Amino acid sequence: MKMTSLDLVENLLGEFATSLEPSLLEVLPDSQGMEEQVIDAMRYALFAGGKRLRPFLVVMTSRLFSVEEENAIRVAAAIECLHTYSLIHDDLPAMDNDDVRRGKPSVHKKFDEATAVLAGDALLTLCFEILSDVKTHSDPEIRCELIATLSRAVGALGMVGGQMIDLKSENQSLIENEINRMQQMKTGALIVFSCEAGAILAQVKGKRRDALKHYGRDIGLAFQIVDDLLDIERSSLDIGKTAGKDIRAGKATIVSLIGAGNAKIKADKLINQAIKGLEIFDDKANILRSLAAFVVGRNY
Amino acid sequence: MKMTSLDLVENLLGEFATSLEPSLLEVLPDSQGMEEQVIDAMRYALFAGGKRLRPFLVVMTSRLFSVEEENAIRVAAAIECLHTYSLIHDDLPAMDNDDVRRGKPSVHKKFDEATAVLAGDALLTLCFEILSDVKTHSDPEIRCELIATLSRAVGALGMVGGQMIDLKSENQSLIENEINRMQQMKTGALIVFSCEAGAILAQVKGKRRDALKHYGRDIGLAFQIVDDLLDIERSSLDIGKTAGKDIRAGKATIVSLIGAGNAKIKADKLINQAIKGLEIFDDKANILRSLAAFVVGRNY
Repeated sequence: MKMTSLDLVENLLGEFATSLEPSLLEVLPDSQGMEEQVIDAMRYALFAGGKRLRPFLVVMTSRLFSVEEENAIRVAAAIECLHTYSLIHDDLPAMDNDDVRRGKPSVHKKFDEATAVLAGDALLTLCFEILSDVKTHSDPEIRCELIATLSRAVGALGMVGGQMIDLKSENQSLIENEINRMQQMKTGALIVFSCEAGAILAQVKGKRRDALKHYGRDIGLAFQIVDDLLDIERSSLDIGKTAGKDIRAGKATIVSLIGAGNAKIKADKLINQAIKGLEIFDDKANILRSLAAFVVGRNY
Repeated sequence: MKMTSLDLVENLLGEFATSLEPSLLEVLPDSQGMEEQVIDAMRYALFAGGKRLRPFLVVMTSRLFSVEEENAIRVAAAIECLHTYSLIHDDLPAMDNDDVRRGKPSVHKKFDEATAVLAGDALLTLCFEILSDVKTHSDPEIRCELIATLSRAVGALGMVGGQMIDLKSENQSLIENEINRMQQMKTGALIVFSCEAGAILAQVKGKRRDALKHYGRDIGLAFQIVDDLLDIERSSLDIGKTAGKDIRAGKATIVSLIGAGNAKIKADKLINQAIKGLEIFDDKANILRSLAAFVVGRNY
């Protein structure tokens, strides 16, 4: 059977996910007493079967600029800690109230709500601890730029603000621009940062850095559309989280606004745009091109 | 009427709290859309009448080493954001379930639980955004050291871990060492960092930095004992939060373990030790000496 480029990306992603695990274990603190439960919860959430898409983007964009792999891996681990915090808090009863995540009990079901809040808090804090450490890069200016750029991407005007809008938008009708802005903040900003991280580590600015940011923005939006389509099309079992929730909660998505067919067309357009934007990198960016196709091709 | 040194410290703290407000307003993001509610909640919590003890410690210890005041103020604002996040999350129903904070509705009562989780997350993130910014110090090495030291102090082996132990210890009997460790993690570590921050900004190491860390540890523990005593002795109205909660929840405190009388003696001992430890700084540290006395003298 011939391997398609999608199969290749899937294999690469799988291998990468496995190779990242020792680094994630290494950054987790060793529990030294009664606080053990919060560290157990952090570990549970970190190893609950995530695809490691954001870390993969960090490492692949870093390779474009021949960044030291151990530096890229540290940033990748930090971003996965941060992404995991956001999932734990989003699943809380007061937020999206999701009892299942990737086919397993979410953290507040496996442990309890207090532990879930604290595990999220600790993972967010750990992300910045990792990034500020000299092991992440010998140049403190670069470490500060990573922290400054990331914290802007995930704060009140980024990921957290996007989640706020998402919650506020239940049973409200947003126009397409508002939904785009919300998605860009909620999930897009962290994906953009994951793509930009390699350029920051290599101190690359200008057109090449902008190209990666645009690539991140395009695949981030496409990824979100695909996620929303899956939310409608698949059963709970298939996607490993409670399906159809967004629809039931009356949440505004691009799919609910323009319909599934138009949304698929839009996702494809975004992917073409993402691939085109990588021209500046010639063949070195082939994995990123395949990854873009993989994002929309994976399940529909 | 003659002013005592305690009156002087109280006045100084009050003036300082007022003078810090513009800096706190400055670091808050401007809301640009539907995410406004989370920024409103951050502002509400930041301006709910905190004593600004931790920022005060940052600025006063910075003055020992003639650190630029604007640098110290930025670190002070960052620490207050972080402290405020911890209060918001601690008050959540799943945690300490406190509906009142400093005589006002806590954030999840004033807004809702989801907004409280998000406002806490955003304030924690904002703290690191502030510290990584060149405005906080021109030397990125110093900014990274602030972030690294703070993140260790408030993560799973620091403040968050302490809160985990506190929750786990309900209706359990801890021995004195375990309670001390829990308090040191939960509230002590951030106070120690607040005292150490001046030394980090001035790149001072060795005995003078250690002296400030010991001072922070001592007043932090004394402060916690006084807080636990107040929790027993005062009514809800007086201390502006639901009183007697720790007793009702069966929480382990030094006071419940060794009794109020012995706890007062212990607090006094800690304060004498804190004052003695400042000898290395001669008269320049007089405010810190008065502050130590103020911590235990304030209300009992």
